[in-house]
Amino acid sequence: MIKLYGFPVSDYYNMVKVALLEKGFQFEEVMVRPGADPAFLAKSPMGKIPCLEVAEGFITETNVILEFIEDSSSDHPLLPADSFQRAKVRELMKSAELYLELVARQLFGGVFFGAPLSDELKQSVGAQLDKGVAALNKLLKFKPYAAGTELTYADIVLYYSATLGGMAVERALGRKLADEIPGLAAWLALMDRNAAVQKANRDRDAALKAMMAG
Amino acid sequence: MIKLYGFPVSDYYNMVKVALLEKGFQFEEVMVRPGADPAFLAKSPMGKIPCLEVAEGFITETNVILEFIEDSSSDHPLLPADSFQRAKVRELMKSAELYLELVARQLFGGVFFGAPLSDELKQSVGAQLDKGVAALNKLLKFKPYAAGTELTYADIVLYYSATLGGMAVERALGRKLADEIPGLAAWLALMDRNAAVQKANRDRDAALKAMMAG
Repeated sequence: MIKLYGFPVSDYYNMVKVALLEKGFQFEEVMVRPGADPAFLAKSPMGKIPCLEVAEGFITETNVILEFIEDSSSDHPLLPADSFQRAKVRELMKSAELYLELVARQLFGGVFFGAPLSDELKQSVGAQLDKGVAALNKLLKFKPYAAGTELTYADIVLYYSATLGGMAVERALGRKLADEIPGLAAWLALMDRNAAVQKANRDRDAALKAMMAG
Repeated sequence: MIKLYGFPVSDYYNMVKVALLEKGFQFEEVMVRPGADPAFLAKSPMGKIPCLEVAEGFITETNVILEFIEDSSSDHPLLPADSFQRAKVRELMKSAELYLELVARQLFGGVFFGAPLSDELKQSVGAQLDKGVAALNKLLKFKPYAAGTELTYADIVLYYSATLGGMAVERALGRKLADEIPGLAAWLALMDRNAAVQKANRDRDAALKAMMAG
């Protein structure tokens, strides 16, 4: 039985979870916080989540896990068969991560955990976001999915980058991604109707509620 | 004809170049500096190099280009056929990039371009390097190649991360990666005998010489 280590509030965890659900894999979720617990470091060398356990051993790094899931089953493909189109999906996955998620992530401490948010940080993130949004707008298709007519990993990575990241950007910078990325709002509504996304989000909301209840 | 955009002093450029040579692709090199030149932004949305041009269009992001090259030809495979082993190679590629190359890269401005190198930066990079080296030592096999008995992308990514990154680490921090990663020195010597690596390094050295003369 596949085990997915992590916790359902993490956007990277949810990317992998939606992929497993979408592909129809059976799996067990194991709640783990990222960190330097030696027992977990034996599974995940940097202590990062998500981490996947399969019969042969452990796999870390979200995009590596996503590729493994796709390599393991041809049901419900999440990458195109054509190699150039595969590359364009992977380019979007990487661009959503580097130029949106990791940019917005710099605000998470301030927005979600009460750390100070300096004007310098806001300016720096704002400038990075300008470049990232311009690059994403060149790559995104929204026909109706991010990379074309089919649901792919580009949708799954972008969805969690744009929802959690977008929340941080709006709260810290007062900018709405939907105003800057044409087609984003309609695509988010489409993704919100996906059953795997709905399941992951229900679990995330229940976990958040439990966290806040203490 | 495939075109590879970039310049031969970049370690990421050389990862792709070695892959193309190793797989036996014919390609043309087009010298481009990374940046915001609008003509290049039409090819590479963030202005980054390397960028690959093929009949169908442009592809950016080193790991995406490497996957495309592998998807495009089964000659001289650089990823294993087994999906778990593929994942372990990709995990090493990503770990070498995130926890070695990108860590050491923070020193490049100081070491190679005369920018100030604060004690704070050196300490921060040193601590990140401690974690990264520990993680890499858990993943590396050196039997004799990074991920096992065959040359893979893990070798190509690690080679340029450990040579250029290792030089920056030694100059700025006085630490030798070969002292901290058992097996690295013998593996570097093995990689230095690879014909594709030798070709890329000759071109790099010629470009460096021309830069310094110019």
